[in-house]
Amino acid sequence: MKKIIYPAENEWQEILKRPASFSDMEGIVKEIFKEVKLKGDTAIAKYTSFFDGVSLPDITVSPEEINEAVGLVPEDLKKAIAQAKKNIETFHSAQKTEKIVVETTEGVTCWLEKKPIQKIGLYIPGGTAPLFSTILMLAVPATLAGCKEIMLCTPPDMSGKIDPAILYAANLCGISRMLKVGGIQAIAGMTFGTASIPKVYKIFGPGNQFVMAAKQMATQFGIAIDMPAGPSELLVFADSSANPKFVAADLLSQAEHGQDSQVVLITTSARILEEVKKEIILQLAALPRKKIAEKALENSKLILIGSTQEAIAMINEYAPEHLNICSTEEEYLIDAIINAGSVFIGNYTPESAGDYASGTNHTLPTNGYARNYSGVHLDSFLKSMTFQKITEKGIRNIGKTIEIMAEAEGLQAHKNAVSIRLKSLADEN
Amino acid sequence: MKKIIYPAENEWQEILKRPASFSDMEGIVKEIFKEVKLKGDTAIAKYTSFFDGVSLPDITVSPEEINEAVGLVPEDLKKAIAQAKKNIETFHSAQKTEKIVVETTEGVTCWLEKKPIQKIGLYIPGGTAPLFSTILMLAVPATLAGCKEIMLCTPPDMSGKIDPAILYAANLCGISRMLKVGGIQAIAGMTFGTASIPKVYKIFGPGNQFVMAAKQMATQFGIAIDMPAGPSELLVFADSSANPKFVAADLLSQAEHGQDSQVVLITTSARILEEVKKEIILQLAALPRKKIAEKALENSKLILIGSTQEAIAMINEYAPEHLNICSTEEEYLIDAIINAGSVFIGNYTPESAGDYASGTNHTLPTNGYARNYSGVHLDSFLKSMTFQKITEKGIRNIGKTIEIMAEAEGLQAHKNAVSIRLKSLADEN
Repeated sequence: MKKIIYPAENEWQEILKRPASFSDMEGIVKEIFKEVKLKGDTAIAKYTSFFDGVSLPDITVSPEEINEAVGLVPEDLKKAIAQAKKNIETFHSAQKTEKIVVETTEGVTCWLEKKPIQKIGLYIPGGTAPLFSTILMLAVPATLAGCKEIMLCTPPDMSGKIDPAILYAANLCGISRMLKVGGIQAIAGMTFGTASIPKVYKIFGPGNQFVMAAKQMATQFGIAIDMPAGPSELLVFADSSANPKFVAADLLSQAEHGQDSQVVLITTSARILEEVKKEIILQLAALPRKKIAEKALENSKLILIGSTQEAIAMINEYAPEHLNICSTEEEYLIDAIINAGSVFIGNYTPESAGDYASGTNHTLPTNGYARNYSGVHLDSFLKSMTFQKITEKGIRNIGKTIEIMAEAEGLQAHKNAVSIRLKSLADEN
Repeated sequence: MKKIIYPAENEWQEILKRPASFSDMEGIVKEIFKEVKLKGDTAIAKYTSFFDGVSLPDITVSPEEINEAVGLVPEDLKKAIAQAKKNIETFHSAQKTEKIVVETTEGVTCWLEKKPIQKIGLYIPGGTAPLFSTILMLAVPATLAGCKEIMLCTPPDMSGKIDPAILYAANLCGISRMLKVGGIQAIAGMTFGTASIPKVYKIFGPGNQFVMAAKQMATQFGIAIDMPAGPSELLVFADSSANPKFVAADLLSQAEHGQDSQVVLITTSARILEEVKKEIILQLAALPRKKIAEKALENSKLILIGSTQEAIAMINEYAPEHLNICSTEEEYLIDAIINAGSVFIGNYTPESAGDYASGTNHTLPTNGYARNYSGVHLDSFLKSMTFQKITEKGIRNIGKTIEIMAEAEGLQAHKNAVSIRLKSLADEN
């Protein structure tokens, strides 16, 4: 952890630089996309064997496998998942919006209505931590939005299995199609469609750098994605009212995500800075993922700053994925923060609450994308369409305006489409 | 125009295929991006000279140029622009949404709030048709959303000038920074920032294939874009209640956009099909952009179909940018259409109304993107952020759930962030 005391504004950009990732994955992603497009399931099988070390006669998860998974998940975890699911449902269903109808000019009625994206693909990574929580975060709003086909891709382990908690959560959320396929090949499969993987319209979910690069590539083939992504990050703003033990625990919870995670403390209190630093060292010692967290802490900063106002400017410049605010001035901060993915306010609001159970979504813009992207929310599964209906009176009211503008843009046929109607109305009279 | 009578469902995909564009522009886009990143304004000047044939000492539009433009725009056009602007403002300000606040569990309050994207870049193409209407469509909602910096890039003509209607509309909308720069170099400039072009967070606006490829490239550098784009298109669904003259005029208004535009008629009436065909030929003869429209009509289809229900399936499969509905069953159609950018209903609702003046936005998803992308609307200039505040009671209520889920995902530090708070509360009692 690097301690930085009262940095000048011209140093901010350098201080807040995110750890760079240099590996260029375009080549391998292009190659696998090409092969999956050309050879479909044969290519899927080849890369599943290559990357996951397993050959599967059928990649579709069977009802028997789901039943087995349901039996394997402990009761207390089932209860926890149920509470989390309920809160996520409550918060996301409150995000439903009504049709917006406006008569902009007499006889000219315009409306905006959201309709569900019909085919959704969810990607859940494999590996040591089975991210069943992400299934709740994606499948719950997709279902509320009314998406018609929701399918899941997740890589099998070397024995061809999926973690039971993942299958349990997917089944609970009503996902009817679960496929054992991961990595670049899964994203390519959902992009082009194969005999066993349906083509989707939008792909959601986290993944390693290969999966991220593959999702970016998918956009070149007309597929939408939830958002571009980078390593996870947390910024805590704390004044002297903060509890240094809690702050340290929050910073560590983010640091354990991955070696490339970044955690930042900005504080107006020199005492808090020192105490948080001590607490981090104390708490770190007991963590099972200590090695990962230690590595992440190398990229991390403890920053002492002159004023809350300066802190706000710095936070908006950094645009953190997660922002914890532990300050007596929280109202002022909430208003002034423009760029952040999700904000956690007060001493009893750990970031991990939002990761699992409070109801907010944990799929959030990293890497500064909070400047220009939303986190996943109900609207991520919908698209806005507009409608308009113009009466005879309405076209009389705005016809002239359209004619003049179309003519000025040199688009005579655009003008004609109005003139022919106005003439017909004039002829009737 | 190709006439297609009662096509079988397995032929639809082939029939509805959009005209392909084969040119690969990645090489030139990459090269210009690299040079603009490295050399800034020097590269901008080089490519402006190369592509636009003009050398400019200063690319910023001066107050004198704006004053001159204001003087050059005819009064009737000013009035037309004022009416259009008012309607666009009315429809887009109705799209404002309130903060959504929910207590998901006692003591756990979550809310979602939209905040404006701070730095917006608008791109308006040059060429024969000065698209001042697009400035209204982008700058009006950007202003309503509260975006802080809104700037405009548009290419100069060979004498270094911008069309007066463009400068007039931009000035009317309060855009304070207008730059004479176009093409790939403009998009690269807004992506990296140069001495004279500010870096932005999101780029909006139409353009030729080079501009589109450049916008796609910009997303690889963390910049958001309004949406991917292709040639413009219109699908008309007409039953025997339609007016064939009006339908023909609408189809032609879309066909005049560009040689690669596509127009499609789907009708349940053989009579309407024949009459529309005749009318197209009649009306085409008088058009100044006849050559362009003729070329576009080569890609176009007149389809006779067995039922409204079948038509709906075909429309949802095609996902048109613009959809006109002239049918006695309009209510049924409005409900059943899932994939379309903007829908125009009834005999007196020409598509050109939405292009200019009714109030809906004309920046819409083409090329089938209506399946997974929204057209531009107020939210395109905002991003959703979530917030949460948990009380002592709240963390007692959901703490256990978070602990169990974090542990099951193998994330001990996530669990600790809760445990340390629960312990502190227990110690207090």
